[in-house]
Amino acid sequence: MSRGSVTIIGLGPGDPRLLTGAASEALAQAEDLIGYFPYVARVPERPGLVRHASDNRVEVDRARHALQLAASGRRVAVVSGGDPGVFAMAAAVFEAVDHGEPSWRELDITVEPGITAMLAAAAQLGAPLGGDFCALSLSDNLKPWDVITARLRAVFEADFVAALYNPISSARPWQLGHALGLAAEFRAGSTPVIFARAVSRPDEAIRVMTLDEAREATADMATVVIIGASGTRFIARESGIPFVYTPRSVPG
Amino acid sequence: MSRGSVTIIGLGPGDPRLLTGAASEALAQAEDLIGYFPYVARVPERPGLVRHASDNRVEVDRARHALQLAASGRRVAVVSGGDPGVFAMAAAVFEAVDHGEPSWRELDITVEPGITAMLAAAAQLGAPLGGDFCALSLSDNLKPWDVITARLRAVFEADFVAALYNPISSARPWQLGHALGLAAEFRAGSTPVIFARAVSRPDEAIRVMTLDEAREATADMATVVIIGASGTRFIARESGIPFVYTPRSVPG
Repeated sequence: MSRGSVTIIGLGPGDPRLLTGAASEALAQAEDLIGYFPYVARVPERPGLVRHASDNRVEVDRARHALQLAASGRRVAVVSGGDPGVFAMAAAVFEAVDHGEPSWRELDITVEPGITAMLAAAAQLGAPLGGDFCALSLSDNLKPWDVITARLRAVFEADFVAALYNPISSARPWQLGHALGLAAEFRAGSTPVIFARAVSRPDEAIRVMTLDEAREATADMATVVIIGASGTRFIARESGIPFVYTPRSVPG
Repeated sequence: MSRGSVTIIGLGPGDPRLLTGAASEALAQAEDLIGYFPYVARVPERPGLVRHASDNRVEVDRARHALQLAASGRRVAVVSGGDPGVFAMAAAVFEAVDHGEPSWRELDITVEPGITAMLAAAAQLGAPLGGDFCALSLSDNLKPWDVITARLRAVFEADFVAALYNPISSARPWQLGHALGLAAEFRAGSTPVIFARAVSRPDEAIRVMTLDEAREATADMATVVIIGASGTRFIARESGIPFVYTPRSVPG
């Protein structure tokens, strides 16, 4: 029996052209494929690959399953959208290692990085993350809302660009509006805001607007929201939607 | 004369296997290659590709050169290490567009995202960016040091993981030590810290240590430093350096 392994693979935002070569190689070597079903569906079927697609919100079960299969000698790929280390499966796998069988610590566990949503979204618009920036998940499944608001305040007060993942869901339709309202306490209403949905996928929808406009707009869980810093600027164009960038320099 | 274009391409951390397919395609289509010389050196020579390598700290000159060539009808690739939108060339190009010839705004300018250093470093260790995190450049060439310290304080106080780019140079050997000293005002001395130098390149050197140890350690400009949040944990292993991860959940 060969020694098993787990590779946690970033599939990027969707377009297969945004996968790294290393991620493609790792997918080609897998015997078992584990992940949330839309990510598993992105990987073509082939002989010798056993697919284990699961529903959302069972990350730790999925991680334990991957580790059990690897411990039995299988070469397992756990797939994530974007980068597995950014609000995705890598942390769930290492949580399962930390709290699971001691022998799991000695397994061959690797991570193949990917293009996370904020980088893919930024690249579509210009350079909105051109200065210092923070990435936050607005989901309160895993942390209290008062921690989220304290972090948002810190980010806005210190004038970072903010990239918001998991901005909304049917269970909490009000949180993104609350976050944008907080932003408006610190930023001008003319500050650029980007709603980037399903970047590089067939249903891609990218909207560029001001903070005032954003407060009236809607998003969904497939959207990453980027709120500019005080220096973030639009560059108007006759030929299309404006570019958005954050200058590298901050005045003294 | 064909219509010119500028594509700002992320080469990732170094290993060509960490390039995206889209970045490789864009490199293959370029007529002119512009960038800091170590990045230009990563792209193989081929007939029909004119190479324009330049020194560090001439980002805006380089950006203007790229835009001038594109305006004359050339297909130009501007190459960056990592992701071009993260402390790299994309912001410089859009600054040059914003302050340059009005006609440059109508040029075909695109960005091909790449694996930025913090994602590559995180993937080598586990999932240190598994919670909310911030990316800051410690360079004070472009922003005042008191802005940098205010941002660091905000990040540590609100308990983000911090990824520090450009942590040190010969002109300012003391800044990383100062940042780690600030971290120690908010975090336990046992907090995991990662010094990841030249990830995926032949001279890669990755060190995992505690915050107390990090305060005695040295880094260089090729290093990205990741300072854990209060929840960031080591997973000790008999078989190698520990894993490092940040749990997804934050206790109430």
